[in-house]
Amino acid sequence: MDVIKRGVSEIIPEEDLVKKLERSIKTKTPLNAKLGCDPSRPDLHVGHSVVLRKLRQFQELGHLAILIVGDFTGMIGDPSGKSKTRPSLNLDETRRNGKTYFEQATKILSAKKVKMLYNSEWLGKMSFEDVLRLASRYTIARMLERDDFTDRYKQGDAIRIHEFLYPLAQAMDSVMVEADVELGGTDQKFNLLVARDIQREYGQDPQVAVTMPILIGIDGVEKMSKSLENYIGFTEPPKEIYGKTMSIPDALIYDYFLLTTNIPQQELAAIRRQLARKVVNPRDLKRRLARDLVSIYYHPEAAKKAEEEFDKVYVKKETPEDIRKIERLESGEILLVDLIVREGMASSKSEARRLIQQGAVSADGRKITGIHQKIQSAKQGKPLVLKVGKHQFVHISENVILLKSENSRKSH
Amino acid sequence: MDVIKRGVSEIIPEEDLVKKLERSIKTKTPLNAKLGCDPSRPDLHVGHSVVLRKLRQFQELGHLAILIVGDFTGMIGDPSGKSKTRPSLNLDETRRNGKTYFEQATKILSAKKVKMLYNSEWLGKMSFEDVLRLASRYTIARMLERDDFTDRYKQGDAIRIHEFLYPLAQAMDSVMVEADVELGGTDQKFNLLVARDIQREYGQDPQVAVTMPILIGIDGVEKMSKSLENYIGFTEPPKEIYGKTMSIPDALIYDYFLLTTNIPQQELAAIRRQLARKVVNPRDLKRRLARDLVSIYYHPEAAKKAEEEFDKVYVKKETPEDIRKIERLESGEILLVDLIVREGMASSKSEARRLIQQGAVSADGRKITGIHQKIQSAKQGKPLVLKVGKHQFVHISENVILLKSENSRKSH
Repeated sequence: MDVIKRGVSEIIPEEDLVKKLERSIKTKTPLNAKLGCDPSRPDLHVGHSVVLRKLRQFQELGHLAILIVGDFTGMIGDPSGKSKTRPSLNLDETRRNGKTYFEQATKILSAKKVKMLYNSEWLGKMSFEDVLRLASRYTIARMLERDDFTDRYKQGDAIRIHEFLYPLAQAMDSVMVEADVELGGTDQKFNLLVARDIQREYGQDPQVAVTMPILIGIDGVEKMSKSLENYIGFTEPPKEIYGKTMSIPDALIYDYFLLTTNIPQQELAAIRRQLARKVVNPRDLKRRLARDLVSIYYHPEAAKKAEEEFDKVYVKKETPEDIRKIERLESGEILLVDLIVREGMASSKSEARRLIQQGAVSADGRKITGIHQKIQSAKQGKPLVLKVGKHQFVHISENVILLKSENSRKSH
Repeated sequence: MDVIKRGVSEIIPEEDLVKKLERSIKTKTPLNAKLGCDPSRPDLHVGHSVVLRKLRQFQELGHLAILIVGDFTGMIGDPSGKSKTRPSLNLDETRRNGKTYFEQATKILSAKKVKMLYNSEWLGKMSFEDVLRLASRYTIARMLERDDFTDRYKQGDAIRIHEFLYPLAQAMDSVMVEADVELGGTDQKFNLLVARDIQREYGQDPQVAVTMPILIGIDGVEKMSKSLENYIGFTEPPKEIYGKTMSIPDALIYDYFLLTTNIPQQELAAIRRQLARKVVNPRDLKRRLARDLVSIYYHPEAAKKAEEEFDKVYVKKETPEDIRKIERLESGEILLVDLIVREGMASSKSEARRLIQQGAVSADGRKITGIHQKIQSAKQGKPLVLKVGKHQFVHISENVILLKSENSRKSH
């Protein structure tokens, strides 16, 4: 139970979980630990890992992880067409996304002791009659108790009737796989509890709901989410994972260690103390966190390399090793703005100009100030490293000089 | 419109009906006038005739009557098992009841220009996905506005989620038959309006809801209903229809003329005036009403005969013509109580005794007072008419005498 309780938000009800675990040990029957997956968002990020890591712990205790890909609702999308966040997918897409989900999830989960099922297998076969029978098991009043429904109802925002059927469909998944435990974020609590009631109605021992905190994104403000661009993706390159981790606010350090890493309990406690007493440089903790995350999604070697790269760019102010090289300017002379666009470091001339005006472009470490600056091949010049924004570098190998263009005075 | 508006409670919206009628005349296309039928209650009574008569008027104006037998919900019953008023029927039963319904309904409706459909034909084929699409067209808040839902929700009485799906299923019926008009009692108003919204969602010109008042039963108190035993059934014998009509309270006379007969508009107005000024004996109006009703369900001859019978029994205090005859007592002597039970005029001896004690048994017009009274064959006696309750007569043809039994004194 100590392992299971780590980082958990709620276990409802805890005594049922204790009983189920005891029975599992006695009968040598693994528990079915269910997790619902949204196939319309197959790009997993560290936010998803919080629940997946908990599921991994159940696997390590000998239980079976059951991933249920919600392709049934995924295929339907939002039939009212009111919500744009629920795209409608076809069968191919849901299968492909399901596969992607599984591949990424097994960066955290053990590939053994895991089963993946598509809920269209049973929900897609239900008739109107079956739906009526299912819907007769739950009341309008209880459904309206769900926080978001309560709020929307009070505010007079439309709740469409099919929205009351989705939690029931999810509950039906629990019935079909005879779930003993279902994991989810705290925002899933209500749905996990609906499934308990429905399982009971279908004569099953109700599942235990295990909810995990919602991870705050790297912006330190909102829930980590792809659409908010405050996420660290499972498949991002090591240096991205490292760099994004270094950018989180200090206030999140402890939660990230707790919810997203394998750090031993004692070390976690030590970190908490150090942060509270301010006897540690948060930057050093973040470096460790960043290494840990890269190690989880790649391996410790990659973590070491990512750290070295990071130090070169951000700490030692050196240019990174994998810098792109241009042997010659081709045209002999080119507007800096044009070069930036040609090399893909800005999407348009106007963006390139803006970057220069914002002071985000430098040559050999010296800020460029004029938007009409040119680069010219010249024997008397020298090779040059051009930096655009925080991350983009180009090394021009031939000898060049910087020139102001004729009309540069007009614009300054 | 005058014909259509007669007796109607509401037409929503009236201007749409005018437009639809005009378009129908212009394009020579009959309107689809829909009526939902409950196959779990196939015994029609005069209460049902109110709406059927209105539908008949649409037929007479050239439109098509579409009877939709709700066998889909009939087959399901109440899946929550909470309501006992909704029995679950099998396919055979719903078909048989549907046929019965149709046979009775055509006592009012023209058998031409009528179509009967079973809604399981389309509802039974809907998948969960179809249900979600349908349910996405309506909101929880609007459904909760239905009076009975509002009340139950406020009172904390459980409303199960499937109950919100039934009005949508009914609305789907309107979509499937492209209903122009739907008829129903005022208690159906909400459901008829849901169908308007759903038809609109499915790109159809929404139906017009035509609601009719709910007919009060012959007790003058409750809605006419079989379970309350305050009804006049379509298939009851003429003398029952006549007798029951004579028993309605005077306050209902006008409504019954208006809602259940073909009485011309001017005569109806005259009746209203007569009743208001009390210049007529209500009994005479009821006699006319009773004749009208028998004429509708049988023919004028039957009405005349029923009236004569009624007069004999209740007015002229004579015995009716079709009185049952017993040639001989068989046993030579019999307790009156036993004879009453043997002839089926009471269901048990104790009931027979109670009837005697209540003074409801008479012989040749003389009240029987002793529960131990016997009848004996006797040459010195005479034939005798025995009356039990208000309606039951037996004519004993042989000569008999009435005797007190030995222990009659003990009990009196």
